[in-house]
Amino acid sequence: MQVARFVKGELPAYGILDGEDLVVLRSDPLFDSWDTTGERVPLGEVRLLSPMIPRSKVVGIGRNYAAHLAEMGNELPPEPLVFLKPNTAVIGPDDPIVLPPYSREVHHEAELAVVISRMCKYVPAARAADVIYGYTVANDVSARDVQRSDSQWTRAKAFDTSCPLGPWIETDLDVTDLAVRAWVDGELRQDGRTSQLIFTVPELIEYVSGIFTLLPGDVILTGTPAGVGPIEAGQRVEVEVEGIGRFGNPVVRR
Amino acid sequence: MQVARFVKGELPAYGILDGEDLVVLRSDPLFDSWDTTGERVPLGEVRLLSPMIPRSKVVGIGRNYAAHLAEMGNELPPEPLVFLKPNTAVIGPDDPIVLPPYSREVHHEAELAVVISRMCKYVPAARAADVIYGYTVANDVSARDVQRSDSQWTRAKAFDTSCPLGPWIETDLDVTDLAVRAWVDGELRQDGRTSQLIFTVPELIEYVSGIFTLLPGDVILTGTPAGVGPIEAGQRVEVEVEGIGRFGNPVVRR
Repeated sequence: MQVARFVKGELPAYGILDGEDLVVLRSDPLFDSWDTTGERVPLGEVRLLSPMIPRSKVVGIGRNYAAHLAEMGNELPPEPLVFLKPNTAVIGPDDPIVLPPYSREVHHEAELAVVISRMCKYVPAARAADVIYGYTVANDVSARDVQRSDSQWTRAKAFDTSCPLGPWIETDLDVTDLAVRAWVDGELRQDGRTSQLIFTVPELIEYVSGIFTLLPGDVILTGTPAGVGPIEAGQRVEVEVEGIGRFGNPVVRR
Repeated sequence: MQVARFVKGELPAYGILDGEDLVVLRSDPLFDSWDTTGERVPLGEVRLLSPMIPRSKVVGIGRNYAAHLAEMGNELPPEPLVFLKPNTAVIGPDDPIVLPPYSREVHHEAELAVVISRMCKYVPAARAADVIYGYTVANDVSARDVQRSDSQWTRAKAFDTSCPLGPWIETDLDVTDLAVRAWVDGELRQDGRTSQLIFTVPELIEYVSGIFTLLPGDVILTGTPAGVGPIEAGQRVEVEVEGIGRFGNPVVRR
């Protein structure tokens, strides 16, 4: 099932994708029920929003694809490399990515993202499925020059608009071998597969939930495959995970 | 004015300190009004909670006191060193600090903390006062061994219970020269002054708000003075900022 957050008129609403329509829900099914209002709206008549705004955090994972490690000149990490993006970094499909004024080299990073269903801590990998609400697509937008110059990645990866999420949440998906792709102005730049993940989704959930309590709607990014590269003002960057969907964002500098 | 969040009975409430009493408020004055319910409760009869749970983030600042830089063997930073703690790290007075299982060397770090009043971005230092709701006291609990071994500070500084805040928010205070202290089992360990800050509160607000949008209730930690050191299970660690207050937490290992 694909659950979208969207706006048509004034207030954000949630809907389940059914062909070219959204079946409108009474409330956020992550926190409430799957009851519908009885309405259907064509997908073409709504504006999609980020599928959720986390109440707590987006957890990023660095260096989780061997080919991306190689292109960055990094070694295989003994453990997942964990960083944070705040909820103020999250934007949705078609929202502009605003290049931060302190960077001259901002990169796209297409990623599979995991959405957490329930408050949890110390989740063994074997029980990870119990805390997964679904999957969405992320662009872990990164100021690469600042990532190199600052010891901590906060300025490089946590700035406003650095976490496009969309187009919706797929609640039922085998993520062990899916294509993860990015395009800049229609040109394919990243084309990896989740089968190349160094640490799998269940392993990441075990590791991350061993550090902090995860709340419903928290998001774990799983790392990006090879092919990262710059995005410039005026371009459009699109990201896709096979089986979930594809969305894009214009890039602007203010 | 000192604004406390507390519980007496079932639900959390807010109150203004008046001598040994709390004047109970109808709602959270950060988001609503200063209207009172007419009730007064003795401070001794309530359990204080963290003065707020940030909707978005706690922004930490590293290496912001020269004497602490020296004890850690670090050089003067050209810019503030920014990291993040999620809201799941926040605890209140007397809540236990739970030592993370992956660390054998956890340190206390007493700090002045700034609470943000309104949504803001790109705040010039000269306008910083316009976005400050008040000040509280923080313990930036840090797994020092992991801070050394991991490139990113997430496991070291963002784990559950790593951000005790309390005892309340002081809304009216000149913070340019206040004592910042920590005790372990009653023994004074840190005794610095905010006059020794390398980057001042207005400078930090300008810098941090240049990275991300700050939301009401977001917290900026200002860094810790010299004297950091280990805390062990069974000990009690207390932190104080002159003019705000003092609170403590027991330390446990599970």
